[in-house]
Amino acid sequence: MPSAAVHRLPAGAPDDVSAVERAFAEGVIDPRGVVAVLGKTEGNGCVNDFTRAFAAAEFRRLLARHAGETAAGAVCLVMSGGTEGALAPHWLVLERREGGRGPSPALALGRAHTPALPPEDLGRRRQAVMVAEGVRAAMDDAGIDNPSDVHFVQVKVPLLTAARVAAAGARGAEVATQDTLKSMGLSRGAAALGVAVALGEVGAEAVTDEVIGRDTSLWSARASTSAGVELEGHEMIVVMGMSGRWAGPLAIDHAVMADQVDVEPVRAALARLGLDARGQLDADQRRRLVALLAKADPGTGGSLRGRRHTMLDDSDIPATRHARAFVGGALAGLVGHAELFVSGGAEHQGPDGGGPVAVIVERGA
Amino acid sequence: MPSAAVHRLPAGAPDDVSAVERAFAEGVIDPRGVVAVLGKTEGNGCVNDFTRAFAAAEFRRLLARHAGETAAGAVCLVMSGGTEGALAPHWLVLERREGGRGPSPALALGRAHTPALPPEDLGRRRQAVMVAEGVRAAMDDAGIDNPSDVHFVQVKVPLLTAARVAAAGARGAEVATQDTLKSMGLSRGAAALGVAVALGEVGAEAVTDEVIGRDTSLWSARASTSAGVELEGHEMIVVMGMSGRWAGPLAIDHAVMADQVDVEPVRAALARLGLDARGQLDADQRRRLVALLAKADPGTGGSLRGRRHTMLDDSDIPATRHARAFVGGALAGLVGHAELFVSGGAEHQGPDGGGPVAVIVERGA
Amino acid sequence: MPSAAVHRLPAGAPDDVSAVERAFAEGVIDPRGVVAVLGKTEGNGCVNDFTRAFAAAEFRRLLARHAGETAAGAVCLVMSGGTEGALAPHWLVLERREGGRGPSPALALGRAHTPALPPEDLGRRRQAVMVAEGVRAAMDDAGIDNPSDVHFVQVKVPLLTAARVAAAGARGAEVATQDTLKSMGLSRGAAALGVAVALGEVGAEAVTDEVIGRDTSLWSARASTSAGVELEGHEMIVVMGMSGRWAGPLAIDHAVMADQVDVEPVRAALARLGLDARGQLDADQRRRLVALLAKADPGTGGSLRGRRHTMLDDSDIPATRHARAFVGGALAGLVGHAELFVSGGAEHQGPDGGGPVAVIVERGA
Amino acid sequence: MPSAAVHRLPAGAPDDVSAVERAFAEGVIDPRGVVAVLGKTEGNGCVNDFTRAFAAAEFRRLLARHAGETAAGAVCLVMSGGTEGALAPHWLVLERREGGRGPSPALALGRAHTPALPPEDLGRRRQAVMVAEGVRAAMDDAGIDNPSDVHFVQVKVPLLTAARVAAAGARGAEVATQDTLKSMGLSRGAAALGVAVALGEVGAEAVTDEVIGRDTSLWSARASTSAGVELEGHEMIVVMGMSGRWAGPLAIDHAVMADQVDVEPVRAALARLGLDARGQLDADQRRRLVALLAKADPGTGGSLRGRRHTMLDDSDIPATRHARAFVGGALAGLVGHAELFVSGGAEHQGPDGGGPVAVIVERGA
Repeated sequence: MPSAAVHRLPAGAPDDVSAVERAFAEGVIDPRGVVAVLGKTEGNGCVNDFTRAFAAAEFRRLLARHAGETAAGAVCLVMSGGTEGALAPHWLVLERREGGRGPSPALALGRAHTPALPPEDLGRRRQAVMVAEGVRAAMDDAGIDNPSDVHFVQVKVPLLTAARVAAAGARGAEVATQDTLKSMGLSRGAAALGVAVALGEVGAEAVTDEVIGRDTSLWSARASTSAGVELEGHEMIVVMGMSGRWAGPLAIDHAVMADQVDVEPVRAALARLGLDARGQLDADQRRRLVALLAKADPGTGGSLRGRRHTMLDDSDIPATRHARAFVGGALAGLVGHAELFVSGGAEHQGPDGGGPVAVIVERGA
Repeated sequence: MPSAAVHRLPAGAPDDVSAVERAFAEGVIDPRGVVAVLGKTEGNGCVNDFTRAFAAAEFRRLLARHAGETAAGAVCLVMSGGTEGALAPHWLVLERREGGRGPSPALALGRAHTPALPPEDLGRRRQAVMVAEGVRAAMDDAGIDNPSDVHFVQVKVPLLTAARVAAAGARGAEVATQDTLKSMGLSRGAAALGVAVALGEVGAEAVTDEVIGRDTSLWSARASTSAGVELEGHEMIVVMGMSGRWAGPLAIDHAVMADQVDVEPVRAALARLGLDARGQLDADQRRRLVALLAKADPGTGGSLRGRRHTMLDDSDIPATRHARAFVGGALAGLVGHAELFVSGGAEHQGPDGGGPVAVIVERGA
Repeated sequence: MPSAAVHRLPAGAPDDVSAVERAFAEGVIDPRGVVAVLGKTEGNGCVNDFTRAFAAAEFRRLLARHAGETAAGAVCLVMSGGTEGALAPHWLVLERREGGRGPSPALALGRAHTPALPPEDLGRRRQAVMVAEGVRAAMDDAGIDNPSDVHFVQVKVPLLTAARVAAAGARGAEVATQDTLKSMGLSRGAAALGVAVALGEVGAEAVTDEVIGRDTSLWSARASTSAGVELEGHEMIVVMGMSGRWAGPLAIDHAVMADQVDVEPVRAALARLGLDARGQLDADQRRRLVALLAKADPGTGGSLRGRRHTMLDDSDIPATRHARAFVGGALAGLVGHAELFVSGGAEHQGPDGGGPVAVIVERGA
Repeated sequence: MPSAAVHRLPAGAPDDVSAVERAFAEGVIDPRGVVAVLGKTEGNGCVNDFTRAFAAAEFRRLLARHAGETAAGAVCLVMSGGTEGALAPHWLVLERREGGRGPSPALALGRAHTPALPPEDLGRRRQAVMVAEGVRAAMDDAGIDNPSDVHFVQVKVPLLTAARVAAAGARGAEVATQDTLKSMGLSRGAAALGVAVALGEVGAEAVTDEVIGRDTSLWSARASTSAGVELEGHEMIVVMGMSGRWAGPLAIDHAVMADQVDVEPVRAALARLGLDARGQLDADQRRRLVALLAKADPGTGGSLRGRRHTMLDDSDIPATRHARAFVGGALAGLVGHAELFVSGGAEHQGPDGGGPVAVIVERGA
């Protein structure tokens, strides 16, 4: 029976994979078992953030050296830029081990790569459909049958570049937007709705070209999608959930923040997994919390609980950077540290201004 | 017997004083009783933040129209730039009313203006000495004898500009630094140590030119200092504390955060004032919390609880902006909204990376 | 016969009107003759640039003190944010004097204020029509009959804010965009096409809602439009041209830059006015160049003369800031200083990536 | 007799070495002859600019594949971040070929790597001495005896990081500064003075610890130094000059800009090499200008030709970014395109606010 291990390791720079290499050398991680690497890198998280590609390139080479080209090519590398505030750059290495023991059901991991997405499909229903199929494949890979056992789906999606827009145009195809920054949001949004369809949160017929990026009432409680120029045209999908076909000490649950300060649902999710805290987690609870993954978003309304904020009007700092810093602070206040996977741009991921949060916990004895 | 009132009012823009004007018109605030206005304005909070001066200019004129030039000139206008994350631009109007009733001791307010500071004294012991004297004068004004009854001292300090540096140079005087951004930190730090001396937290002899801006072991638990180019050369000092010579429903207490996520001391201070919450404050508690004032700082070490952060290495966003957003998020997660007076640059204000926090609460029936 | 004077005066800060006040006191400028003040202020030139409003507020008060409320209200205050690179913050005070002598035709000035623009008309044909009427009124005011004698039309236009969008929505009206930053570009573009219509550069029927902000083949060679939140809902229009009904030493001409480095047409315009330079203007020529006004724009194609630039992909610095700095450098290299009125956002002002430039010169003896 | 070739090739991204790889494949460049690659990458050019390291890593691998590990290790990779304004990301591949024909003297290339620099020597006299020795070695390598035949010396220098500061501290050694951003300037400045000593522009005895970063009267007219975190501890030095031991079509000359708009000395240098232009270079001249390398700097005085600029007070955009955009514009206005190697941070490189410029030209028939 397989067992999932999650290794949270520090990154000294976007290309600093030394902690992972050391874990390989010491036998802590078997490189051939690596399913995915989720990385928080220290760029701006927007269009010209090359720290994601730099990290992905180094990991691709590291994995090829240790596990061979084929295995390395199958690993999902999901780099998410932006460590605003005190958020710590780090890697989450997700590993599948055989011969797992311990409690079951337990944390289960699955992955899938979709075929290449034509530029003109990006940000449209066809992208959502493709992602929904990918999520189902990743659920199969994870041994999860029931969508309600899925607690987080991390998807890395492509974006449009001037070159891709031109390539589509040369074939007479029209893209959803010519604005490359906007294409990031549309791509994240379409993929999130694909997750929602696969998990039964939104009906497949509701996901039309028109609603993507517009109808904020449609959302997934468990999708987290990141865009990056380093991806050619396909998506990488990682499913995390609970499965009776997996055993091991780790468990996962999720929560939905309704807005940027709504940390109480996260506290409740932690409590359900045995980390019941009045205020901040104590040192032992902190140690047992293996990973926290969350989406942060400024929302479209320009206010939080009736009070105006200025994230959307600030022409010096992108709104997603503000949101990651602030939501990162709110979650760090709850957890007691800031090595958290807080990702920005939550289109169709949680309600407007809010976002999904997953917590992975080592169960007590 | 005097009574203190604290009005928290929204700002739609740096020059939007309409909510205050309306409160004057409706008799909610007596313009002649205004002791100070503390404002969070939506600039970058650094050198070229003109939102502070814009707000101060509008308030000076508003107060002159409603209370006369002389009374307006005596009001301490402390504008603090930077509403990163979801922090809400707002004004805190501090009012002294006569004929107060209700519990005593109660929140007491005092203020002082220091004489003009020669540019060459800025960031040096002489500034600290001047501020210490000003704090004592403001304590007298507030009717507070015992330094331990003081819970927060807000000081607005000048900074060096190219013109002021040149003026000193023309007289043969040497300034502490030629770097205008650095002068903000030195001025904040010297003033904070002045507060610490006045409150008995640091011995007067310990405050030498050499330690200012360097020795992070010297700090005040109750000082909050902001620099701004809109100030000619003097300081404005507002003291908040508890006094038996004041009566009224409001009470104040303070806490010290040891680092950017250390919210539990703030929770404890709230509990001491009757707002005892397991997680986030509930709606009624939130209503009773009239104001929260805090300092946020990236610290000098580049890490939070052993994990690296990138605030100090980010050449795109100033570290103080990162810190305000993140600490603002941590405190908003505790309180349940983000209309908080979170100010950046905590040199000698709390321990390295941490900062003082004051809470003003309406006591229960 | 009237005569035009143009005073270029330094600004030490957005609210520093001291040089203008001194010119009033010394009789250099008659406050009652001020037609317009064009200011370069040192904000970011984007949505949250409050330096424009700060400057306008101070000028409104200064003029009211010296020329009375009515005359002050008629002055066109056109504040343009953004002094990137070495661009110098400064004021251009345009004055109309009676009893002018010297050569004629000469520089002529006219102004107009349009009625308030409903939010739903912003960025649409109706705005262009309104501006076209305003330009004709300003031409009348300047005593210019022939559109070909107009060399520059500076228009200050409003933008949409969340509040204005909501106000329109409450009446059941739909605005052109909900994106406040985008509304700046649409408003600038519609106004520029209004100028083009008034000057006969574009047929009135060609300006439909659909082309505004999209069809870059439609443009004016003499329009310069700036958006600012400080404007309630109307436009302020300043026309500069040559008129036989004006006399005086100043003359104006214009050029169109085809892209961001196309300075040779500007050199030719300077030569037509007697400033013929092989390379950079010499000191005497520089003295005779009273003002240079230009538009800078990154263009939509992402390249300059076949080589990629990164202005459109930089999520840290807005593209208009890049463009002002770079085009400012190109023009300063020609002129020999950087106290130039370089304004960003050239939608329908000159060809895509280029922009109109006006030069005002004191004619030789 | 050797001959120098200089290939200017576009970069589609920091890791896009495809144009160079194509040139290898087509035989346009012999990978074994590559002396140095100078790259302009599209990061912020400051502390957290990882585009430099990303580019260097890709080039190191590309060269190892095509020329072997040893030859690749000897190539000087000088990546300079920052393509503000319309500056185009590009690579300058400097190649040494044997069997050169054509005019002599001609452009000559030499290189050197210094030993590792202890962190405590960075920004101090010892760094300057080490660089001076390296320049002499690179001159030997280039076959240049007379310092006056050297026209440009490009040096890549290390900077201090928190880790390096700590390493020095652990040995009881004190570094010149703990501020990592400041260390970039000190390192650039010390290296520039090292060049000045080697070229006889400044006496060796004048370069004390005290003058580095302070005495702006000491400078080299031919040094260009860039700092980058990607460098471990040594310097890489590339010398370009004219040598009678080299033959070929290329020639080099240099100029010094006295301030950010002083382009006329550059025009004169171009004219000396046969590119004599009244205004902007024409298309043929532009083709013959193979490369332009320049330093841009905001200067310390806050003004340009008596008019205030705001580069030093802008807390949103680093001053070096402003300067590159603006000086890039001034030079692009002269040359007619923006694929220019404009590097920021000109401490001791040219006079305060100015900087050295080198031009490499293909001589006419």
